[in-house]
Amino acid sequence: MSSSEPFDFRIEHIIDIIKDAQPAIIGLQFPEGFKRRAPAIASQISEATGVDILISANPCYGACDLDVAILDNVDILFHFGHAQLDDNKYSEKVIFIETRSDTDVKEVVRKAVPEIKGKRVGVLTTVQHIQKLPDVCEILASEGKECLIGRGDSKIAYAGQVLGCNFSVADGLDCDEFLYIGSGEFHPLGVSLATGKRVLVADPFSNEVREVDPRRILKQRSAVIANSLDAETFGILVSTKPGQDRMALARQLKELAEKRGKTAYILTMDLITPDQMLQFKVDAFVSTACPRLAVDEVGRFSAPMLTPQEFEIVIGEREWEEITFDEIRGE
Amino acid sequence: MSSSEPFDFRIEHIIDIIKDAQPAIIGLQFPEGFKRRAPAIASQISEATGVDILISANPCYGACDLDVAILDNVDILFHFGHAQLDDNKYSEKVIFIETRSDTDVKEVVRKAVPEIKGKRVGVLTTVQHIQKLPDVCEILASEGKECLIGRGDSKIAYAGQVLGCNFSVADGLDCDEFLYIGSGEFHPLGVSLATGKRVLVADPFSNEVREVDPRRILKQRSAVIANSLDAETFGILVSTKPGQDRMALARQLKELAEKRGKTAYILTMDLITPDQMLQFKVDAFVSTACPRLAVDEVGRFSAPMLTPQEFEIVIGEREWEEITFDEIRGE
Repeated sequence: MSSSEPFDFRIEHIIDIIKDAQPAIIGLQFPEGFKRRAPAIASQISEATGVDILISANPCYGACDLDVAILDNVDILFHFGHAQLDDNKYSEKVIFIETRSDTDVKEVVRKAVPEIKGKRVGVLTTVQHIQKLPDVCEILASEGKECLIGRGDSKIAYAGQVLGCNFSVADGLDCDEFLYIGSGEFHPLGVSLATGKRVLVADPFSNEVREVDPRRILKQRSAVIANSLDAETFGILVSTKPGQDRMALARQLKELAEKRGKTAYILTMDLITPDQMLQFKVDAFVSTACPRLAVDEVGRFSAPMLTPQEFEIVIGEREWEEITFDEIRGE
Repeated sequence: MSSSEPFDFRIEHIIDIIKDAQPAIIGLQFPEGFKRRAPAIASQISEATGVDILISANPCYGACDLDVAILDNVDILFHFGHAQLDDNKYSEKVIFIETRSDTDVKEVVRKAVPEIKGKRVGVLTTVQHIQKLPDVCEILASEGKECLIGRGDSKIAYAGQVLGCNFSVADGLDCDEFLYIGSGEFHPLGVSLATGKRVLVADPFSNEVREVDPRRILKQRSAVIANSLDAETFGILVSTKPGQDRMALARQLKELAEKRGKTAYILTMDLITPDQMLQFKVDAFVSTACPRLAVDEVGRFSAPMLTPQEFEIVIGEREWEEITFDEIRGE
């Protein structure tokens, strides 16, 4: 990994695997942020090994979003940017390349220390920085703090790792507050809503420290719920992506709707987009797919898009105060 | 079928099948133009039979575009709006509901007769009007014309039926000109380019008769080819949709590119959209997927989008004069 490359695509490791396993043809799958690298990485691997390569061009937003169709055509699929989901792989053909970040986290953690109010600190991050957690704990310990790292459920590959749809490493952690290492708002917001505890964000890319404030997102989600209170007809969305398929939950929600005298249709699809949902005239949608969809695309759908928990509030099966981000939990 | 409903969704037929086969759960798949009908049709079927229903919300543009993922969850999939593709179905679970049109075609055919120059007329249409071909031939015969209807290859369910990607019913038909019954420009343009013969369009929806003029589309395709002449790097697209998967062709094109000293990457995906292709920086794309993609979405991609035949022209393996629409042919 050169100093100009902040992410480690492990090309030498991949070349070693190919030389060893001698596949006739391999697949490469990248999340959206890395797709532009695909041709150059394919050329590098092809020149070193002569292997045939297919590049998955489907949108990819997580380990949940494995390209199932390409598996029929390749001997090995290298899936970049995410850690393995669940204890069991979807297919033996898939090798996860986690693209760890080389970005220093110490500086921003030192910057965060004066902002930490409590003594017991729950530390969280995404897979890109997971190898830096010992550094984080060392700094916290040297400042007299206690560093707590949760194990998480079966969807979680590493202690302390959060996904956009799984905050189980924060479950029952006996800490005063959380320190999240990473960029983006979604993960720390989810932890804040799930635990009700203070969450501090230390962003190693921007070198900024900030406290999560869930008020804006709560107001936004409350508006979506409010706009759905008169809904009579619901479209319940199920994604067929292997890590997002929650058909059993969708059926439960449909029964719940019907018990309350509402009409509900189960709509199944791969990628859910606002454009595609225009085709279906319902009063509100309920997404059992990627929990980020309802939140990140708020206001872009032709009808309010609820999470399962928000739908329960709408039909009176859950209290407004129990609003939280949706999660896809493992065992 | 009521007089206010121009298309026959065969609801009673579907209800009979369900009562007979007693499936626990069925799927409904509609092309884009019919998706808005899905909830009402689902309610009608559910009320009559009590069967559980899943609605496929994935984009659907043809019989090639069967929702494979939904098949895992249903006992029967009713696929609306298209005739069965190929002699063999993809799955025994799929029942094609062709949604024939009740729209009268006689009036527009009578209107077309004075415009017909030759004696021997090849008659073509889409599956929606296929049952009207005897009416068409009767009118032509009464006007002293000879009515010729081609059989087509294995992709074609009915004599005289054209698809947007298959004009095989026009192959070698010993006619002076063609009469196409239907709306839209794509099918008659394809027949015009494939045969070099005059094609008259009789549109029963607008009640208009017009002659196909391929000059504008030829100019447009020539511009796409011209813009690709300097391309060094190609992205060759393969769709994994069951009826569009032409991996063998993609591999041949890649070899051809490499023989000419060019670089080519094979990109596989389900739905190909201009937005998604933005992620890949190449000098030109070659689509082996739905042949309409390059033509209908011209100018919307970040790089010229060629058909396989146009790519052959670009790299000097085919003459410019041999330009034609791409087809996905059967046996």
